[in-house]
Amino acid sequence: MAPIGIVSECFSDFGNFVLQIVCVNSACTYTKILCLSKVLDFHHPHQLKDGLEGFSLDLPEHAETLEQILVDCRDTLKYGVSTGHPRFFNQLSSGLDVIGVAGEWLTSTANTNMFTYEVSPVFILMEEVLLKKMQSIVGWSEDEGDGIFCPGGTISNLYSILVARYRVCPEVKTKGMGALPPLALFTSEHSHYSVKKSAAVLGLGSESVMVVTCDERGKMIPAELESSILAAKSKGLLPFYVNATAGTTVYGAFDPLAAIADICHTHRLWMHVDAAWGGGLLMSDRHRRKLQGIERACSVTWNPHKMMCVPLQCSVILVKKPGLLQECNKLGAEYLFQTDKPYDVNYDTGDKSIQCGRHVDVFKLWLMWKAKGSDGFGSQVNKCLENAEYLYDQLKRNSDFQLVFKHKPEHSNVCFWYIPPSLRALQPGPDRDRRLHEVAPQIKGRMMEKGSVLIGYQPFGDKVNFFRCVFSNPATQPEDIDFLLNEIITLGADL
Amino acid sequence: MAPIGIVSECFSDFGNFVLQIVCVNSACTYTKILCLSKVLDFHHPHQLKDGLEGFSLDLPEHAETLEQILVDCRDTLKYGVSTGHPRFFNQLSSGLDVIGVAGEWLTSTANTNMFTYEVSPVFILMEEVLLKKMQSIVGWSEDEGDGIFCPGGTISNLYSILVARYRVCPEVKTKGMGALPPLALFTSEHSHYSVKKSAAVLGLGSESVMVVTCDERGKMIPAELESSILAAKSKGLLPFYVNATAGTTVYGAFDPLAAIADICHTHRLWMHVDAAWGGGLLMSDRHRRKLQGIERACSVTWNPHKMMCVPLQCSVILVKKPGLLQECNKLGAEYLFQTDKPYDVNYDTGDKSIQCGRHVDVFKLWLMWKAKGSDGFGSQVNKCLENAEYLYDQLKRNSDFQLVFKHKPEHSNVCFWYIPPSLRALQPGPDRDRRLHEVAPQIKGRMMEKGSVLIGYQPFGDKVNFFRCVFSNPATQPEDIDFLLNEIITLGADL
Repeated sequence: MAPIGIVSECFSDFGNFVLQIVCVNSACTYTKILCLSKVLDFHHPHQLKDGLEGFSLDLPEHAETLEQILVDCRDTLKYGVSTGHPRFFNQLSSGLDVIGVAGEWLTSTANTNMFTYEVSPVFILMEEVLLKKMQSIVGWSEDEGDGIFCPGGTISNLYSILVARYRVCPEVKTKGMGALPPLALFTSEHSHYSVKKSAAVLGLGSESVMVVTCDERGKMIPAELESSILAAKSKGLLPFYVNATAGTTVYGAFDPLAAIADICHTHRLWMHVDAAWGGGLLMSDRHRRKLQGIERACSVTWNPHKMMCVPLQCSVILVKKPGLLQECNKLGAEYLFQTDKPYDVNYDTGDKSIQCGRHVDVFKLWLMWKAKGSDGFGSQVNKCLENAEYLYDQLKRNSDFQLVFKHKPEHSNVCFWYIPPSLRALQPGPDRDRRLHEVAPQIKGRMMEKGSVLIGYQPFGDKVNFFRCVFSNPATQPEDIDFLLNEIITLGADL
Repeated sequence: MAPIGIVSECFSDFGNFVLQIVCVNSACTYTKILCLSKVLDFHHPHQLKDGLEGFSLDLPEHAETLEQILVDCRDTLKYGVSTGHPRFFNQLSSGLDVIGVAGEWLTSTANTNMFTYEVSPVFILMEEVLLKKMQSIVGWSEDEGDGIFCPGGTISNLYSILVARYRVCPEVKTKGMGALPPLALFTSEHSHYSVKKSAAVLGLGSESVMVVTCDERGKMIPAELESSILAAKSKGLLPFYVNATAGTTVYGAFDPLAAIADICHTHRLWMHVDAAWGGGLLMSDRHRRKLQGIERACSVTWNPHKMMCVPLQCSVILVKKPGLLQECNKLGAEYLFQTDKPYDVNYDTGDKSIQCGRHVDVFKLWLMWKAKGSDGFGSQVNKCLENAEYLYDQLKRNSDFQLVFKHKPEHSNVCFWYIPPSLRALQPGPDRDRRLHEVAPQIKGRMMEKGSVLIGYQPFGDKVNFFRCVFSNPATQPEDIDFLLNEIITLGADL
């Protein structure tokens, strides 16, 4: 093994190197220079696998030199994607918060686990404080509310169904699904696929998920929900759970939460709100009214790693009824969770979760909250939504583009087609659709090769491939949006 | 917002500060001085919640100063637990590998997600390379093997049951548990509780888990497994899955894998090996024979964050049959996983997992592998097991202690009682047991107050509270083990 001195030196080099990357990427140091750097330096899988100029993915039998390790680190970043770049519009999670990264660095240094107060005294208390705060922001009273940080929104949504099922029939925990009549749950056609995936995993089966029709803006239609519930009942199914979405993945739509809450109340159903994407808007006085009714939910998913720009991962499931998560999940393995400890073991959260060891995802959020305050998060959210409005305005006045729907965006999602010159004279119909469907993938391919900007596209329902732009990086400025549109026009001019 | 300069400066300060902590904690810079530092500085929950000298957990409305942020960071580390300390023997995960931490820092800086090649080209390929390597170490052939990195061993074990259930009846994915007769799965009484927890989550119910008796060393008795399978069949249950443990949590026992594989073959059952803790021994030529038979498993859980000292979290589920994970979990949500991308979309792994977004847990392991080589991991494991043998030898020759069983440890777990002076003359029986049961918690309480060393205890089966010492930190030296025993004697002398 190399002498300690060399290790420390290299590590310090590495530390400074990563530090540079953070500073270049971060919102605080956004400069014109950055925009000359690429969002990505694309290579096909076979190119990276074959090895590029001394960068090999192979795992050695014997130690490499520390100089090589530094090269490996540089190349890993070089061939990766700069998700913190202000022109990365590809995912709901983007940006790179300097304090958030600092928080994550400290977390890796502490290298501990969330299962007991004994090994995570500070982080366990931070989780409690954050949960309480988020519950109060949702609108729950002091004596309501429980929750846990989860590895991503899908697992948070899975928890909500798990707990709702347990509430219907606690015996399911020991006896399994055989203890229950066939169940039915409800979610909109625009909701995230995690509801179906969770139903498959939990043994309900994906067909137990009833898909409710949306209006043209992607909002669940309450009357459709009601008739779907009645239809399920008439088929002998037991409706027990409704997922309402606050901020859908593609359109950024908000389901009408208050109307859905009324229906859930009437039929005594568990109301879950998947606010993985939209939850961040609760931080903004200007936008939180879009989630009106969320306070009536039995559970809420909220991912601070999306709209609040917290480093990945940071997702929370909030449950209104205290104690239910623990009852649902505890197995009381005393060889892991002793009850005769020298402190209050109610602070040992390990038996409340599905996981045993649980990653510390709280500190980065806690630290960012300290550094920004609630109002800092609010301004950040406002800024992202202003960017969306700016893009919407540009698209409306530019005939090279067509909006997927004409309403002003509620969230930061803006969906649109680019109409290349050769298609502009065509009448709407199957032929134009077929050709339009191929436009976005072609432009995206060229965009990846060039590496100047990154935006996602998808088909959706009866709509052929269109671009979806999302804003969650507060470093993005109007000129980045102008750049995006010009780049699409340039790359698609010959299509 | 504070000017950029201040942010960078503070962040740089913070970087250096964390760097110091890493260097002090890390295996490479272990010195005598470190042993004068505390493993923990214990405070009760109410003390930390009330706030200690300017350290408040409360979340503010407005931004705090950056100076305060640095104080918050220092205090978070101060009141936490040094899991990297060579005298932290409390958990299966311990130690702090300097290259592993560097890897985790770069990962947080890259701040991306594992769902598509598009946003994680390098990390996706690293996952593939690591999985292939680990599969070959398990002993699978080139054309066998699939897998995925998971948020912890419990989720890895859950995946194994999920996939095994799907293999029995693919319709369960759409139709739910109603498509199946009542199932039975098998695991030993010493196995991890995650098998039961997963059965509860997946809708099988915890009672579908048949608990198989172990011998006095904690190894599953194959004849007991066989009769348990026959008993389940005679009750009309459908046996489908056996979990064998390679390295149990408390005793560190290895189930007889080859004999269990024979039984699984006869009854056509899915054989899973939970090698979360024991998998690391596969890296050592000296110890890998203890897992003989693992190559016959249908799936394997292996947590490099335990015995291989990779920062938390790093756990993998390996599945022998390629394609099964994808078939079992895919939902084909085209709005997220487009099929008309400009690269080979087989590299998009997002539909293979339960989660949608998935944390990047591969880079730290990949980087450590580069820095140590396979043989470096082997020496590290050997060293931990030598420490266990050293402790075992000390205990055997010291009449203040009593071993829980007399065999030499197979893994790095060593279980023992401390017999305080007042108990030494007592005959074995209920009275001595009752008093002995209270010894470990009392010593542990004093140990936490003092903060000099940390070790776990638990009751198990018919055995009253005993200490379990585990070694996974290569920084631990024999003198740390001497210190532990002397400390227990000092703290327990008056009991």
